[in-house]
Amino acid sequence: MELHGKNLIGIGTADGGDYSFKSYNPSVGMEMDPVFTGATESDVDTSLSLAASAFDVYRRKSASDRADFLERIAAEIEALGEDLIHRCMAESGLPEARLLGERGRTVGQIRMFAALVRDGSWVDARIDHALLDRAPLPKPDVRLMLMPMGPVVVFGASNFPLAFSVAGGDTASALAAGCPVVVKAHRSHAGTAEMVGRAIQKAVSDSGMPDGVFSLLHGQGRVVGTALVKHPLTRAVGFTGSLKGGRELFDVASSRPSPIPVYAEMGSLNPVFVLPGALRERGDQFAEGLCQSVNLGVGQFCTNPGLVLGLDGDDLDSVKGKLEGLFSDSPNATMLNPGIREAYDAGIAAVQSSAGVTLVARASAEADPQKTQAAAHVFSTDVETFLNTEQLAHEVFGPSTLMVGCRSKEDMEKVARGLEGHLTATIHGTEKDLAEFSDLVTILENKVGRLIFNGFPTGVEVCASMHHGGPYPASTDGRSTSVGTAAIFRFTRLMCYQGFPQSALPRELQDDNPLKIWRLVDGEYSQG
Amino acid sequence: MELHGKNLIGIGTADGGDYSFKSYNPSVGMEMDPVFTGATESDVDTSLSLAASAFDVYRRKSASDRADFLERIAAEIEALGEDLIHRCMAESGLPEARLLGERGRTVGQIRMFAALVRDGSWVDARIDHALLDRAPLPKPDVRLMLMPMGPVVVFGASNFPLAFSVAGGDTASALAAGCPVVVKAHRSHAGTAEMVGRAIQKAVSDSGMPDGVFSLLHGQGRVVGTALVKHPLTRAVGFTGSLKGGRELFDVASSRPSPIPVYAEMGSLNPVFVLPGALRERGDQFAEGLCQSVNLGVGQFCTNPGLVLGLDGDDLDSVKGKLEGLFSDSPNATMLNPGIREAYDAGIAAVQSSAGVTLVARASAEADPQKTQAAAHVFSTDVETFLNTEQLAHEVFGPSTLMVGCRSKEDMEKVARGLEGHLTATIHGTEKDLAEFSDLVTILENKVGRLIFNGFPTGVEVCASMHHGGPYPASTDGRSTSVGTAAIFRFTRLMCYQGFPQSALPRELQDDNPLKIWRLVDGEYSQG
Repeated sequence: MELHGKNLIGIGTADGGDYSFKSYNPSVGMEMDPVFTGATESDVDTSLSLAASAFDVYRRKSASDRADFLERIAAEIEALGEDLIHRCMAESGLPEARLLGERGRTVGQIRMFAALVRDGSWVDARIDHALLDRAPLPKPDVRLMLMPMGPVVVFGASNFPLAFSVAGGDTASALAAGCPVVVKAHRSHAGTAEMVGRAIQKAVSDSGMPDGVFSLLHGQGRVVGTALVKHPLTRAVGFTGSLKGGRELFDVASSRPSPIPVYAEMGSLNPVFVLPGALRERGDQFAEGLCQSVNLGVGQFCTNPGLVLGLDGDDLDSVKGKLEGLFSDSPNATMLNPGIREAYDAGIAAVQSSAGVTLVARASAEADPQKTQAAAHVFSTDVETFLNTEQLAHEVFGPSTLMVGCRSKEDMEKVARGLEGHLTATIHGTEKDLAEFSDLVTILENKVGRLIFNGFPTGVEVCASMHHGGPYPASTDGRSTSVGTAAIFRFTRLMCYQGFPQSALPRELQDDNPLKIWRLVDGEYSQG
Repeated sequence: MELHGKNLIGIGTADGGDYSFKSYNPSVGMEMDPVFTGATESDVDTSLSLAASAFDVYRRKSASDRADFLERIAAEIEALGEDLIHRCMAESGLPEARLLGERGRTVGQIRMFAALVRDGSWVDARIDHALLDRAPLPKPDVRLMLMPMGPVVVFGASNFPLAFSVAGGDTASALAAGCPVVVKAHRSHAGTAEMVGRAIQKAVSDSGMPDGVFSLLHGQGRVVGTALVKHPLTRAVGFTGSLKGGRELFDVASSRPSPIPVYAEMGSLNPVFVLPGALRERGDQFAEGLCQSVNLGVGQFCTNPGLVLGLDGDDLDSVKGKLEGLFSDSPNATMLNPGIREAYDAGIAAVQSSAGVTLVARASAEADPQKTQAAAHVFSTDVETFLNTEQLAHEVFGPSTLMVGCRSKEDMEKVARGLEGHLTATIHGTEKDLAEFSDLVTILENKVGRLIFNGFPTGVEVCASMHHGGPYPASTDGRSTSVGTAAIFRFTRLMCYQGFPQSALPRELQDDNPLKIWRLVDGEYSQG
């Protein structure tokens, strides 16, 4: 596939305006062809007008047609073959194995949503039949189901060029719900975006879906991104990125004449609490798992464990000793782009220069800036310093973590109580530890979206039970997940039909249940 | 019960600060004892600190204990007997029959939530078991359920002194979900608020619920209300009232350092489309139903039908003729308070003075300002005038409606397409009409939360299938309902447990399903 660098508006293209850029290969420090042009204001307007007019057609397609469409998107992405993987490797600096895995996850979650839509029960259909002889007033016939909101704007994420970008989780869940999608591509991987976007365009045409159900725009976040969020036809926004970027979009969306929800997932420190039994019984194993989790994807995951808390003592010292060796031996690796590497270096410098913080170890090899490389770091400090140094509560995006030694269980609970919202918290311990630290669990339940026992937060399982999200500032909407089938709810709203004849009701709400979905009928769940 | 006029902080009281006021009896135009004192900033802080410390205890109470508590609240409200009804009649000007009905609805919906909590399936529990031998990576054990958000602030509504106030829908759904509640009483019915609040205090004590699970504060919305919404421990807000008031709270909540959701339900015009078949077959019956719906509760419902669209012609003229008689004969009635009556009069004056609008009829008796009375009005205009007069798209809160004559189906669709978000839209017609106007249905589905066929929007049924909410500006969060069991979702968020041993899991997520709730286990719904 020869890249053209244009914006994809519906099934067509648009040349865009004055702003242009090239992708950058962080592994070799060079720009790549072609030139991409940023969308104009008129492109923004056209893509959303097309999306709005496609909406009513698209949302009324049968569940089976929508599922077929999603499956075709997955197949078209696979059909891009190694061209996609190679372009993506060049644009992201990520290794082939990781991107093959990420592609598998991407098409896997699209197919998961296809299956969810085909099953159909996700709409939470409810029927209360009329009781015409009820006193003092007759009870009307009332029926409820979820319906899609309308056009959704999705921002591609720097750190997941496939799974959280053009055809990533937000796009898949929005399309599954019945919402058209306009994607703002991330400039770091504009070529990957174009390839995936064109695969979706092909699926739109081949599936007979309405023109406008998908568009893809390039451009600056502050210009094109803001214009997309401000556009009156936009109904919701999905974003994965920095706290600063996410909050800006949230503020723009909240101050619209007609506010809209923003699902911004903004990363976090993902604190890990290692309890005495685990330290004693398997300190080395914990250190190995931690080092692996911190370094996975060069630490460029929202779920990277950036904070570790344990009780002071020989066992914790021994873990630190083990980590010293492991981190010294960590190979340097290429980060996604120079901006991220610079931010990482600045974050590391800030932690390192904080009074009371010591460096336990850093990767001993010299990081090559030409290859956009980062060196892994592990730091250590005490509770007092941690609680009194605001800087240490901020995420350093990259392969680093901070060990905090606590003098007591109370210390540990105090740190937990002071935490802001995070995506995850992890506890390592024996079952006895868990019982002894049950107050810690209670505290953490209020701070995070996912609690992990004896595992690591990286490697988010895509399934019905997953929650990837958390209280602010982990996300702008802690009610909702961006991973797993429950993500479909973020792009829906309730719709109630009262007194409607059978023929005018959506099939999900007709008495004879033609779709055989699970429903709550007069208070009883059934599939009948 | 002798009223003391104090704020209720947990199970105690607080004298409040400098601001004080008395309730006003709109039927006789006189103030009533006692003096109520507004809460201080310190009262706000104490009530939320108590709520936050009660939260972890309360949310971990068994579902059965929480249900018992809700049922005890309902019983204590009933035990207030006619004292409550009489005070409420005096403070609201509403007649006894309406308030007996509203009390029935209030305790009915509290008991409905008790039953929902006792049943337990609402938590949407999901379990994905581990697959340790999955390649390339083992699948972890992941479990998901809804958990309560934390302290919720609820604003009492002027127009529902019982069903949307101290122990109203938002309080009931928040308590059911497991959230402590701090209510800001509406000053129009502060005595009613105190009585219901003290009933809840008694239920808290008698049920052994933690102190702080409920508080009730008096004071000015701009001062006490804003302070409650800004307080860092507040996690969500429920409000029913004006667009201006709701938007202000939304803006305060969105600009917090840590933003929180605001569920503000702000009323709407609730357009009614009367199609040719209905006009022809049962115009008189339609007119009677409309007049009754417009005048119900002196038009002081968010679901009041304020806009009626029909095709020009003899049939529509005949409906207007019928309405002329019906509205002329409408008795004047007391509105909730002088502020609302003044706003109604101002709204009527603005409509009446709009070029192109004619008065079809008004209640012929003189409204008595001493009795805070309002006169019912029905106006008429044409499509052009309606589309070009912004004023006409605004709700006039009270017993009035505006008939818009359309020349064609296209006219009607044009008006529908131009609508902002509304709580409801209603269609009167034959099934043949409905088939012919199917595009109208499609348009309206995107504009409202509830579509009614051959009924009227007033009289919101409280059940599992109800949706009371709608796209902005009908509400600040069109995803969510304030009536019916689905209202419990507004005060919840997702919580995921990964790799947890059985003994440390909430009972809802344990393998043996001790609560016998419906769950999604490895992709299959079951109660086993």
